[in-house]
Amino acid sequence: MNPPAAHLWRHLRVFQIWGSNTDVGKTIFATTLCKAAAKHYSHEKVAFLKPVSTGAPHEADSWHMRSDAPDIANDTLFQYEVACSPHAAASYRDSAVLAEIRSHAARRAALGSGWLFIETAGGVHSLGPSGTPQADLYAPMRVPALLVGDSKLGGISQTLAAYESLKLRGQDVEAIMLFQDAQYENHLYLQDYFQPSGVPVYTIPKPPQRNTDDRAEHRSMGAYYKRLSSDDSMRDLLANLDKRPSDEALLQPAFDRSASWWTQGLDHGNPKLTLAAAYAAGRYGHVMFASSVHEPALALAGTLLENMRNPRLARVFYSDNGSTGCEVATKMALRAARLRYGWSANDKVGILALRGSYHGDTMGAMDCSEPGVFNEKVEWYTGKGHWLDFPTVRCHEGQWQVDIPKALQADLGCGGETFESLDEVFRLDERIGSATHKAYEDHILRELQRLASRGHKFGALMLEPVVLGARWMILADPLFQRTLVDVVRSSGSQLFSTSTQHSLPDDSPSNADWSGLPVIFDEVFVGLYRLGRFSAASLLGVHPDISVHAKLLTGGLMPLCATLASESIFAAFESDDKSDALLHGHSYTAHPVSCQVALESLREMNRMRTSGDWSWARRPSQQEPEQRQQCANEAPLVWSVWSSDFVNQVSCVAARIEAVWALGTGSGYKSTAAADLQTRLRSGGDDGSWTAHTRVLGNVFYIMASQKTDKATVRGLEKLIAEALLE
Amino acid sequence: MNPPAAHLWRHLRVFQIWGSNTDVGKTIFATTLCKAAAKHYSHEKVAFLKPVSTGAPHEADSWHMRSDAPDIANDTLFQYEVACSPHAAASYRDSAVLAEIRSHAARRAALGSGWLFIETAGGVHSLGPSGTPQADLYAPMRVPALLVGDSKLGGISQTLAAYESLKLRGQDVEAIMLFQDAQYENHLYLQDYFQPSGVPVYTIPKPPQRNTDDRAEHRSMGAYYKRLSSDDSMRDLLANLDKRPSDEALLQPAFDRSASWWTQGLDHGNPKLTLAAAYAAGRYGHVMFASSVHEPALALAGTLLENMRNPRLARVFYSDNGSTGCEVATKMALRAARLRYGWSANDKVGILALRGSYHGDTMGAMDCSEPGVFNEKVEWYTGKGHWLDFPTVRCHEGQWQVDIPKALQADLGCGGETFESLDEVFRLDERIGSATHKAYEDHILRELQRLASRGHKFGALMLEPVVLGARWMILADPLFQRTLVDVVRSSGSQLFSTSTQHSLPDDSPSNADWSGLPVIFDEVFVGLYRLGRFSAASLLGVHPDISVHAKLLTGGLMPLCATLASESIFAAFESDDKSDALLHGHSYTAHPVSCQVALESLREMNRMRTSGDWSWARRPSQQEPEQRQQCANEAPLVWSVWSSDFVNQVSCVAARIEAVWALGTGSGYKSTAAADLQTRLRSGGDDGSWTAHTRVLGNVFYIMASQKTDKATVRGLEKLIAEALLE
Repeated sequence: MNPPAAHLWRHLRVFQIWGSNTDVGKTIFATTLCKAAAKHYSHEKVAFLKPVSTGAPHEADSWHMRSDAPDIANDTLFQYEVACSPHAAASYRDSAVLAEIRSHAARRAALGSGWLFIETAGGVHSLGPSGTPQADLYAPMRVPALLVGDSKLGGISQTLAAYESLKLRGQDVEAIMLFQDAQYENHLYLQDYFQPSGVPVYTIPKPPQRNTDDRAEHRSMGAYYKRLSSDDSMRDLLANLDKRPSDEALLQPAFDRSASWWTQGLDHGNPKLTLAAAYAAGRYGHVMFASSVHEPALALAGTLLENMRNPRLARVFYSDNGSTGCEVATKMALRAARLRYGWSANDKVGILALRGSYHGDTMGAMDCSEPGVFNEKVEWYTGKGHWLDFPTVRCHEGQWQVDIPKALQADLGCGGETFESLDEVFRLDERIGSATHKAYEDHILRELQRLASRGHKFGALMLEPVVLGARWMILADPLFQRTLVDVVRSSGSQLFSTSTQHSLPDDSPSNADWSGLPVIFDEVFVGLYRLGRFSAASLLGVHPDISVHAKLLTGGLMPLCATLASESIFAAFESDDKSDALLHGHSYTAHPVSCQVALESLREMNRMRTSGDWSWARRPSQQEPEQRQQCANEAPLVWSVWSSDFVNQVSCVAARIEAVWALGTGSGYKSTAAADLQTRLRSGGDDGSWTAHTRVLGNVFYIMASQKTDKATVRGLEKLIAEALLE
Repeated sequence: MNPPAAHLWRHLRVFQIWGSNTDVGKTIFATTLCKAAAKHYSHEKVAFLKPVSTGAPHEADSWHMRSDAPDIANDTLFQYEVACSPHAAASYRDSAVLAEIRSHAARRAALGSGWLFIETAGGVHSLGPSGTPQADLYAPMRVPALLVGDSKLGGISQTLAAYESLKLRGQDVEAIMLFQDAQYENHLYLQDYFQPSGVPVYTIPKPPQRNTDDRAEHRSMGAYYKRLSSDDSMRDLLANLDKRPSDEALLQPAFDRSASWWTQGLDHGNPKLTLAAAYAAGRYGHVMFASSVHEPALALAGTLLENMRNPRLARVFYSDNGSTGCEVATKMALRAARLRYGWSANDKVGILALRGSYHGDTMGAMDCSEPGVFNEKVEWYTGKGHWLDFPTVRCHEGQWQVDIPKALQADLGCGGETFESLDEVFRLDERIGSATHKAYEDHILRELQRLASRGHKFGALMLEPVVLGARWMILADPLFQRTLVDVVRSSGSQLFSTSTQHSLPDDSPSNADWSGLPVIFDEVFVGLYRLGRFSAASLLGVHPDISVHAKLLTGGLMPLCATLASESIFAAFESDDKSDALLHGHSYTAHPVSCQVALESLREMNRMRTSGDWSWARRPSQQEPEQRQQCANEAPLVWSVWSSDFVNQVSCVAARIEAVWALGTGSGYKSTAAADLQTRLRSGGDDGSWTAHTRVLGNVFYIMASQKTDKATVRGLEKLIAEALLE
């Protein structure tokens, strides 16, 4: 379960030698570098590692090292007798290969300062022993790269392409090395080419023609290496490599337990997303989105609308982040409501929401939240709206329960409910019609009547469905949120249009499908499979009129937000007068790079869902609920990567844990020991080889897996946390 | 001067055949495709083009086509006798090579529907006849790619690397074709590898061993092609290629005259920026910027601070776009002013600014602008501040003049000034001390006294230096902006602290370097060489306390904004209480991809400046003003890519042009014919082969070159515009 570790040490200088092609002289450069290092430092301090040798005739070059640098430690970890087809070679797991190499390097590092040169096989994308292209396989090692260029005909192309493939993986290419060739002079071109990017190109003379007679070949190569020993080029390269800061901290792998601010779904540095970004950057650059469109934006809009399965949503508005996306949503709803109810632009209109909600840090998004410690000091902040108390869900001492806030208990006439499982909490079809449901309905209606009677005007009902993320990771009772939407839709129109003393204007949109108030769901945090569903709204059986999506949308690469809206919301901005339009456009609105990355990211998550990648986290009865037709009254089923045993166990640490929940890939713990736990986990796993980076919100400790975190890792984390809590 | 044109036609299906390596069989695949197309359509409809033949022994394959497909049109445009070193080959300009190929393809297209297969030379990055790697050279053609994979040992690596280099240029790879090889089975691996991305892999049997005897070789290849003619693979490929929508519109190149909403500096799809983006995506993915840092963000902050040459600026705050960056700037200034002057968070504090300024579309940024047609209808908009009238600069009938708005003429006691050149307008060292300067000073002081006496409180002076971009492209009199800053700094403290009836609190920051009010410069549009200088502030000889940068920052690739601030502004948020911090953080704050792209973009523009890339646009006396020490009283010199002859000429079209100006790469025209002009330019250049995409703001027509637009293109545009205006 250990995350792949970087192969960097404070004193051991490790470099990886990559080839632009097969047969470009990797081993000759490796041998020359080792000999130069042995000469200038000492042979005990130098080691050579060829992790994989496939034994292809012209690759079986380790005799160079054995015969021409016999003093130097020289190892191979995976040996194949003959060159074979790549499928046949795929006999190890990526993690096993990396672990082998790491152990080897760690043993060298234990010997003290020195040099280790690791030679790859073939070209940059030649397959490793796991069947994964080396460029992907070795990327987590974070070992600086030395690229051997191709000095032959066509070699410029091979060198540039190999360089780009390494850069695409975030590899730091420290130098390019290649043979001088008087006919093609590739080295001259490459020196010019790489000069602006500061990548030095080192050259040495070409080796002698290959000799079929072994002894003659040995003699001529011996003479060649001897001549090279007085060549300055490799010495200069070594001296430059030696200049890298020697007090560089060890890299320590850490499990990213907040899924990098909840943006992460497909792991850091996913090469598919990187290539999608690179493609769109090369293909489109900037597209001015005012009166233009491009394929990635169009395709992404289609993909979002299709996957939401919300028949109301028909339009997509792009902006740069969740905060701006929520401002757009607010502008949409306020305009639609104002036109419907005939208010003037100067009328004070707020939003109806839940206490503790959060929508971002721009002024408009801040104003959607009630006053509190984090916004009251901000000079232009003015909370605009009303925020209701609401029941919450937690697991406590093995029992799932709905807690009613004290302030509501009298009005609701009840103090909460208990459930067998979280699943039952979400069986809204069974809970609708219950006494609790009726109590919720009555309470909400009374609240709205009270607000209306005081002249409050509202332009939207704005909710984070299921989980209120940023403030306290609160799991709301889904029945309450559902009931709130239902009551606003059935009674809002009557309540709020009456209270305005205005009659409906004649030109109100005729085919409006929103009623009461436009319903905005901010799914920035909870959407896109974070809670196990493409849309968290499906857990409530509710179709919002406006839905906001960001974070996981671009899989952690770059900012993008999509605000989805219904046709009737869109219609509120239709006019011949430009000043009636929704004039919200950032310079990079719908930039093609993020749109392309988002498309790739959604496709990959959808693929994972349909191919059952998360089925280990579901009980048999819960397989593929997404594939079943969702309708308003069907009970949504919930699942989580965090096991129910673990949730039960944690919920029983009564002294320190007040509440716990887990849903999809996320979980939260209200604990008196949140900060302690964070410190404890930072200090590392079983063998100290990795740690967990976590975030704490007040007294809430939370953990987020990515959509790709595997079962073994999740179970390992559960163990680590349980131990930390029980110690 | 024609921009490179896409080589796409409605009926002619053009494909470009790329090689993963030299000697992978490009010509064999081309011949096979041509023969298959001839068989299934008709030989007149098929053509083969090898733009460049270097005559290298194993590349001289056009006899395949001549002898095995003799009916098919077969051309070469650039012929080299022998394979030569790449430096020797660089004997044409990129544009000449593309024009040759386009003419050829256009002739084919004129013949009606059909197929044209264009074969590249060597690998994807092998050099074209201009010395530019083909992948970059041919990218503007936008011809769909067919990639010939490498079936030999190491060929998987070469194929994947070539594929990635094509994708990095935004190439659409329609299919991969390669030989079946029973030993290495690369095709099997590649079929699996590309299956998820939907790129089909087509294979045909390996050709016979090469025969040194020409006639025998001819015979055996003839037999091979005959066998292939009954092979389904290439026919299937053709059928799929034929499925591409046939009513695809012709692509029409257009000069992007608004520099893509002013974001563009280094041209669309710049491969250096693309590679920087790809590197950072692969290297970092997402980094949670709360209590973390990464190299690109740190290096970018350093680069910005260094190049600004503003000794006040010491801190950098990242957000996602100019609008959020201006909100951050506003939050910074308001807090600093409130603490200094002892106001409470509930005090009504506005900003002092100029009429017609614009800072973005989020609510907080909107509130920085005065009420007007575009924001008054937005429900939560409330302009917060006071906006002053100000003198503007324009060229009219060949004369540069400063115009005083009517409302100010009496108070200023003057109606404007005229100047020999725009240079003189910017010689602030000479203008300071003049009667106009004194009049400006007195007027501004009276205005501030009036505002203070009415109890107005201000938290910032916020300006777009030199040009007010978004509203009307107004060139402000730099002397007025300079004087405004000077007066606020010298008198603001006394005026506004008195008016609050508060004494300064004892704990006000002791080493504050701002005085009067924090000065914010919004350089989102005008900064980063848009007006010829790294910072537009240097044209005013003023050092703001807060400076906002975006747009050109990332060269058109993706959103990023940097808000720079002084140490004393930063100090206003230092506290042990978290709620005192500047709590503004988007999920993707300082995302490494944009930071890396911005770094590369700034480096490239700095390189262009120091290597004199823009010197053609400067008169001899104006060379390298950036390299001279800037101090407050030194006259800044201005330059523009738009010639003074052109500006004069346009300014004399009195009937239709009210005003014109040009500075750096931008220019604006106040015209009664703006929309007409836009239409006229959209209809095309001299030969109809390209058009200009322009933007109009009300009655203002504006043109923006990129930092890379060359002299010939600018002069060509000038001619086109002048003709359109005079016709």
